[in-house]
Amino acid sequence: MNAESLLESYLYKSIKNCENKNSPPRLISAIHHAVFPGGARIRPRLSLAVAQACGNDEPDFALATACSIEFLHCASLVHDDLPCFDNADFRRGKPSVHKAFDERIAVLTGDALIILAYRVVASASVKDKNRLADVLHCISNGVGVPEGIVAGQAWECESKATLRQYQKAKTGALFYAATLSGAIASGDLSNDWGLLGEVLGEAYQVADDIRDVIANPTELGKPTGQDESLGRMSSAKELGLSGAVNYFDDLINKAVLAVPDCKGAGKLKKLVQAESQRLVPKKGPMRVSRSVKSPSRVIFPG
Amino acid sequence: MNAESLLESYLYKSIKNCENKNSPPRLISAIHHAVFPGGARIRPRLSLAVAQACGNDEPDFALATACSIEFLHCASLVHDDLPCFDNADFRRGKPSVHKAFDERIAVLTGDALIILAYRVVASASVKDKNRLADVLHCISNGVGVPEGIVAGQAWECESKATLRQYQKAKTGALFYAATLSGAIASGDLSNDWGLLGEVLGEAYQVADDIRDVIANPTELGKPTGQDESLGRMSSAKELGLSGAVNYFDDLINKAVLAVPDCKGAGKLKKLVQAESQRLVPKKGPMRVSRSVKSPSRVIFPG
Repeated sequence: MNAESLLESYLYKSIKNCENKNSPPRLISAIHHAVFPGGARIRPRLSLAVAQACGNDEPDFALATACSIEFLHCASLVHDDLPCFDNADFRRGKPSVHKAFDERIAVLTGDALIILAYRVVASASVKDKNRLADVLHCISNGVGVPEGIVAGQAWECESKATLRQYQKAKTGALFYAATLSGAIASGDLSNDWGLLGEVLGEAYQVADDIRDVIANPTELGKPTGQDESLGRMSSAKELGLSGAVNYFDDLINKAVLAVPDCKGAGKLKKLVQAESQRLVPKKGPMRVSRSVKSPSRVIFPG
Repeated sequence: MNAESLLESYLYKSIKNCENKNSPPRLISAIHHAVFPGGARIRPRLSLAVAQACGNDEPDFALATACSIEFLHCASLVHDDLPCFDNADFRRGKPSVHKAFDERIAVLTGDALIILAYRVVASASVKDKNRLADVLHCISNGVGVPEGIVAGQAWECESKATLRQYQKAKTGALFYAATLSGAIASGDLSNDWGLLGEVLGEAYQVADDIRDVIANPTELGKPTGQDESLGRMSSAKELGLSGAVNYFDDLINKAVLAVPDCKGAGKLKKLVQAESQRLVPKKGPMRVSRSVKSPSRVIFPG
C-alpha cells in the first residue's frame, strides 16, 4: 500500500474505532463528512514524508501523527466555515458541515476532531514514550495558543494584526508542526525540521490567497473572493497578484534549501517541487496574471 | 498550600504559559474569563482527591491531570452556552463568553481550552510515561466520541435518545474520567475507580436538573428553567421533583459504597457526603419540595 492509501485507511479506521452502539449517529456522519473525501492531504503527507526521510522506525506512530495533523486541519476547516466566521456554504466541493447538518453538529464535529487527533496519537504504539510527549507538544503548538491555528483565527477578531502574524499562526503553525512532528515520530531531534514546514506553510497560504482571487469556485470546491468580501488580510491584496506569485516562487526555493541533509532529502525536495506545481502551475491562469499589477483589476475588471 | 489553592494556581499558571507577545489578546482574555472565577471545581477536586487516596506519588502529574479535566469542562460550558445550543447569556454569575466577547471568540475559546487540556498533561513531569498515554486515553473517553461530553451534546441534536444515554455522556463521562484519571495519575490501575465517578456524575446531573427547576437564577449564576424552555431531557421532568430528590439520595449512597478500599477511603467518602450536602442540602427548598409530586406544579403554579 502506498503512503496515500495507508493514510486514508488509517484516518478511516481511527474514526471507526470511535463508533459503537452508543455513539450519536448524526455526529458520526458529520465527522465522516468533514474528513472524507479529503483535499490534497498536504499536511499529513508532508509529515509522513519527513518521517520516511528520517528512517521511519516507528511506522504506526508516524501514521498516527500524520492523521492527527489532518484531523486538526479538518477541525479548523469545519469551525472556520461556521456562520459566525466565514459562513461558507461549500467546502471541498460539497456542502460545509453546518450546511449539510446544522450549526450545533458543526461545532461538535470540530470539537470531536480535535479530541480524536490527540486520541489517535495517544493510542498508537510507540516504544519510546518520550516521543509521545514531544509529538503532543508539537501538535499543540501547531493548533493552540499562543501561535497555532486557533490563535490565527483569533487574529481575525482583533482590530490590529499584521499579515505575517496572522498567516504564520493560521497556516504556518500547522505546517511547522507537520514537518517537525514527522521528524519527532521517527526520533530525529537533531535537525531543524520545523523551518521547512514554516516556509511551505507560508507558500501554501500565498497560493491560497492567489486562488481566492482568480480561481473558479467550482474547480476549487469552495467560494472564492472571500478575502475581499470578508475584509480579510491577504498577500494578493498586499503585494498585488504578480508580487504574490513571485513571492510564492521565492518561498518554494527557500523550502527546497530548508530540507536538512538526510537519506531521503532528494525525494523530499522533489515532493516540494511537485506540490508547488500543483499549487501554482508553471503554466496557466495563475502565471498569466503575473503581468497584472493589481489584483483588483482582475477581480473587478473595469 | 491546600488542594484548592494548588489547583487554582496550576490552572492560572497553565494559561499564563500559553501567553506571549504573539498571542491574540482578546482570545487570552476570553480564556481567563471562561476559567476564572471557577465554579465548585468539583471534577478536578475529585480527580485530585482520588490521586491522593491512591498515594499521589507523581503530584505534578496528578495536578496537571486534574487541571486538564477542568479545562475540558470549561470548554464544554463555553460551547454549550453558544447561541446555537443553549443561547445562555450568563454563566457563573457573569456574562457567558459569547456575550462578553463574541461568538467567534467563544468558539475559539472552547477549542483553545480543549487543546490546552491535552497540552498541560503532555507537558507535566511524570517518570512513568505509560501513565501519560493512559491518562490521555481516559480523558479522551470523557470528552470525545462515542460516549463523552461531545457525544452527549450531540444527543441533543438527535430525535431519539434516552435520558440515561444522554446524561451518561453529557455529564457522567467526565466524572468517570475525573476519578479514573486521578487513580491512573497515581499509578493505581487495580481498582475500578471509574464507577465512583460515574455514579457521582449521575447524582450531579440529577441535582442540576432539580436546581434548573427550583433555584433562583441570581444565586445559581445562570438561567433556570432551561430544560423546560429548550425541551431538554431532565430527570426532574421524568421522575417529578420528589422522585428526583429520592433518586439523588440513592445515588449518593451508591457512590459512598463505590469508593474502593484504599488508605484514603475514609476521607474520600467524607468528601462525597459533603458534596451531596452542597448540591442538595438536607434542609432547604430542595427538600421541602419533596412533597410536590410534579415539577410543573412548582415552575408553573396553577
